[in-house]
Amino acid sequence: MAAPRVRTSNNEANEPTSLVVRFGPDHPLRLDSGKTLSPFQIAYQTYGTLNEARSNAVLICHALTGDQHVANPNPVTGKPGWWEVLIGPGKIIDTDRFFVICSNVIGGCLGSTGPASINPHTGKPWGLDLPVVTIRDMVRAQVMLVDHLGIDRLFSVIGGSMGGMQVLEWAASYPERVLTALPIATGARHSSQNIAFHEVGRQAVMADPDWCGGRYIEAGKRPEKGLAVARMAAHITYLSEAALHRKFGRNLQDREALTFGFDADFQIESYLRHQGMSFVDRFDANSYLYMTRAMDYFDLAADHGGRLADAFTGTKTRFCLVSFTSDWLFPTEESRTIVHALNAAGASVSFVEIETDRGHDAFLLDEPEMFAAVSGFLRSAARARGLEELA
Amino acid sequence: MAAPRVRTSNNEANEPTSLVVRFGPDHPLRLDSGKTLSPFQIAYQTYGTLNEARSNAVLICHALTGDQHVANPNPVTGKPGWWEVLIGPGKIIDTDRFFVICSNVIGGCLGSTGPASINPHTGKPWGLDLPVVTIRDMVRAQVMLVDHLGIDRLFSVIGGSMGGMQVLEWAASYPERVLTALPIATGARHSSQNIAFHEVGRQAVMADPDWCGGRYIEAGKRPEKGLAVARMAAHITYLSEAALHRKFGRNLQDREALTFGFDADFQIESYLRHQGMSFVDRFDANSYLYMTRAMDYFDLAADHGGRLADAFTGTKTRFCLVSFTSDWLFPTEESRTIVHALNAAGASVSFVEIETDRGHDAFLLDEPEMFAAVSGFLRSAARARGLEELA
Repeated sequence: MAAPRVRTSNNEANEPTSLVVRFGPDHPLRLDSGKTLSPFQIAYQTYGTLNEARSNAVLICHALTGDQHVANPNPVTGKPGWWEVLIGPGKIIDTDRFFVICSNVIGGCLGSTGPASINPHTGKPWGLDLPVVTIRDMVRAQVMLVDHLGIDRLFSVIGGSMGGMQVLEWAASYPERVLTALPIATGARHSSQNIAFHEVGRQAVMADPDWCGGRYIEAGKRPEKGLAVARMAAHITYLSEAALHRKFGRNLQDREALTFGFDADFQIESYLRHQGMSFVDRFDANSYLYMTRAMDYFDLAADHGGRLADAFTGTKTRFCLVSFTSDWLFPTEESRTIVHALNAAGASVSFVEIETDRGHDAFLLDEPEMFAAVSGFLRSAARARGLEELA
Repeated sequence: MAAPRVRTSNNEANEPTSLVVRFGPDHPLRLDSGKTLSPFQIAYQTYGTLNEARSNAVLICHALTGDQHVANPNPVTGKPGWWEVLIGPGKIIDTDRFFVICSNVIGGCLGSTGPASINPHTGKPWGLDLPVVTIRDMVRAQVMLVDHLGIDRLFSVIGGSMGGMQVLEWAASYPERVLTALPIATGARHSSQNIAFHEVGRQAVMADPDWCGGRYIEAGKRPEKGLAVARMAAHITYLSEAALHRKFGRNLQDREALTFGFDADFQIESYLRHQGMSFVDRFDANSYLYMTRAMDYFDLAADHGGRLADAFTGTKTRFCLVSFTSDWLFPTEESRTIVHALNAAGASVSFVEIETDRGHDAFLLDEPEMFAAVSGFLRSAARARGLEELA
C-alpha cells in the first residue's frame, strides 16, 4: 500500500492543509498514563515516493515547537519548511531517493490531536482534559501511522532535540522496524536544568489570566503574553553566549544612545521580543505545556530498569549521533552517555561532535559538517544493508 | 564625625528598621540620565566602630535583590543577613576591627528611594516616573553617604555580582577614596545573554495585568505571578547544571511516580516555585525592573572611551578579583578581562578562580577558598598600607 495522496476531509478548526489519518474506536492509542486516546488523528506530510520494496522510508521527528512541514512552506508562517536545508530533491536527505514522512506529534497543534482539538466526548476543546502524553506515546502514534502507510521497516528515523528523543524511543521500542537511527542534539533524559527552564515557561503561560485555567478557546482569549515570555526564556537556551555576543553584543536598537527607560534599547531585547511575539501566532499555549511535559518526563534508562544500555540490548539498528560543542541544552556529554550505552549494548554507532558557536539551534541550520555526517552515514548504512540504490 | 547611631524618623510605608539619611534640596543626586533626584534618602546599616583615624571603614555593595542587612537578621524575612557567613565579630570581615557599612542602593525597595517611594512632587508612589538609575548613580549616592559619615577613604569596597559592578565603579570613579577593592563574581559589562535573561524577567513582570503599567500600589495590587516567573528564570542562572543535578537530579517531589499532570512532579519544580513565591514577599516588582536595567546598562569600558584599562589609569587601589568555575552568569573570562585591564593600567591586582559546582550563588555561600582569599588580601593590604591594627 502506497502512501495515500488524497487529502482526508477536515473539520477541526485548528487544522492546516496536511494529510490526515483518523484512527477510530477500533484503533485506540494506549498511553503511558494508563489512559486511552480514542478517536484521534495524525496530520502528516510525505515527500518522494515509496519504492516497491518499501525500503526507502525515512521518518523525520520534529522538535518541541516543530511540525510536519519539514520540507514544504509552512502554511501558518509562510516560511520554508523547518529542515528544508537538509531535505528535498537532490539534498542530503534526497526525496528523489527516499520517501520522507513527517507527522505532527500527538499533543501538537498543527492537525494531530492535541489540547486545542475537539474532545468528541464533550464537543468542546480538550484543554487540559487531554491526557498527558509522553515521547513513547508520540512514537506509538507514529507506529500506527507507519502501519497505515504499509511500511514494515523504516530505512531511517531522524530528529533533533525532542525529535531525537523520539528517535531513541523508536530504536529502543521498535528495533526491528528501524534500520538506522540519527538522534541529533538530544539526550536520553531531560536534565534538572532543562526541566527547570520548561517549568518557568509553563508557569509563565499559566500565570497569564487569559490562559483561563486552560479553557481560553471557549473564553475567546489567548494567553499571548505568558506564552511569549515562555518562548523568550526558552529561546535563550537554544542559542549560545558566544553566538549572542557575536550577533548582538551590546549593540543598541535603532538609536544612538541609551534611552534610560524600559523600551528595547538593546538589539538582543528587540530580537527576543520578536521571537516571543511571532511564536504566539503559530503555536497553541496548551500544546506548549504538553510538549514541554513530554520532554521532562523522558528518561529512557528509567524505562529500562535504570540502565540505559538495556534499552538497546541486541539491537541491529545502526546509530549515528551528532552533538554541537556550544549546545548547553543538550551538551555533548548527553550524547556521549548514549554512545557509551550503545557500545555497552554492542550496537553499531558513530558519533560526531561538531565545533560551532551556534548552540542548540545549530541542528536546524546550514551546518556542513552535520550534512556530511548524515550523508556519509546514510550512504554507508544503505551499502551495508545491500540497498545500493539508496547509497 | 562618627556614624550617626540614632534612627532618623521614618514615614515611608516600605521602610524597614534601618538607619536612614535624607538628602534635601541642597544635596541633589545628579543621575547619568541627565535628570536629578531630589530629595532622596538612603537606608543603611553599620557594624563595628569607626576608629579615630577613620581608616577602618569597609563598604559592602549588595547584589540585584540584596539589601543593607548584610550582617543582621533581615527584618522582612527573619533570615540571617545575606553575608553573615563572611561578616561579623571575629569573622573574615571582622566587625571588631572594621567599621562595616552597607546601604540599600538607590532604586531599591528596602528604605532607599526607589520606585515604591513617594514622589514628593505628586504625593504618589514614583512608579516608573522615577528616573532610571545606573550603577554609577548608585555609587554617587553611596559617596554622599560616606561623606555624611565623615569618611574620606574606605579601607575596602567589597561586593559580588551587581555589588561587584559597584566596586569597579568606585575604583574607577573615586580611586583616591578606595584603598582596596574586591569585585567578586562580576564583570565590567553585562553580556548579551545576561541582558536577554533580564529582559525575560522584565517582560514577565510587565505582562502581569496586576502590574497596572507600574501603578500597582495605587491600584491596591501586586504583580506577584509575573515577578515570581521573573525570579524563577533568574534563579536558574544563579546555579549550575552540575549543582542542580547533584541537588535535585530528576528526583520526584513527595510522590512515588509521575502524575501525568502539570503539578510539580519534580523536586526542581517545587524548588523553583518556592523561590518565585518567597521572592515576591520581599521584593518590589518595579525595583526589580530598575535593578536589572542598571546592570544591563553597566559597561565600564564604554564609559571610558571603549578601553577598559583607561577606567583605571594611575590607580593606587589594590584589587583582588574572585570568580567561580561554574558561574555561567559571570564566567571567569569576565574577571580575566578586568584583570588584564588592571595589569595594563599598572594596578596591583590578585585574582583567584575558585573550583566549585555551586554556580554564581557561590559568592553568597560558605566557600572556604573565597574566605581565605578575602582574608589574606585584606591583611596583606593593611600591612602594605601601614595599618597593622587591621592586619
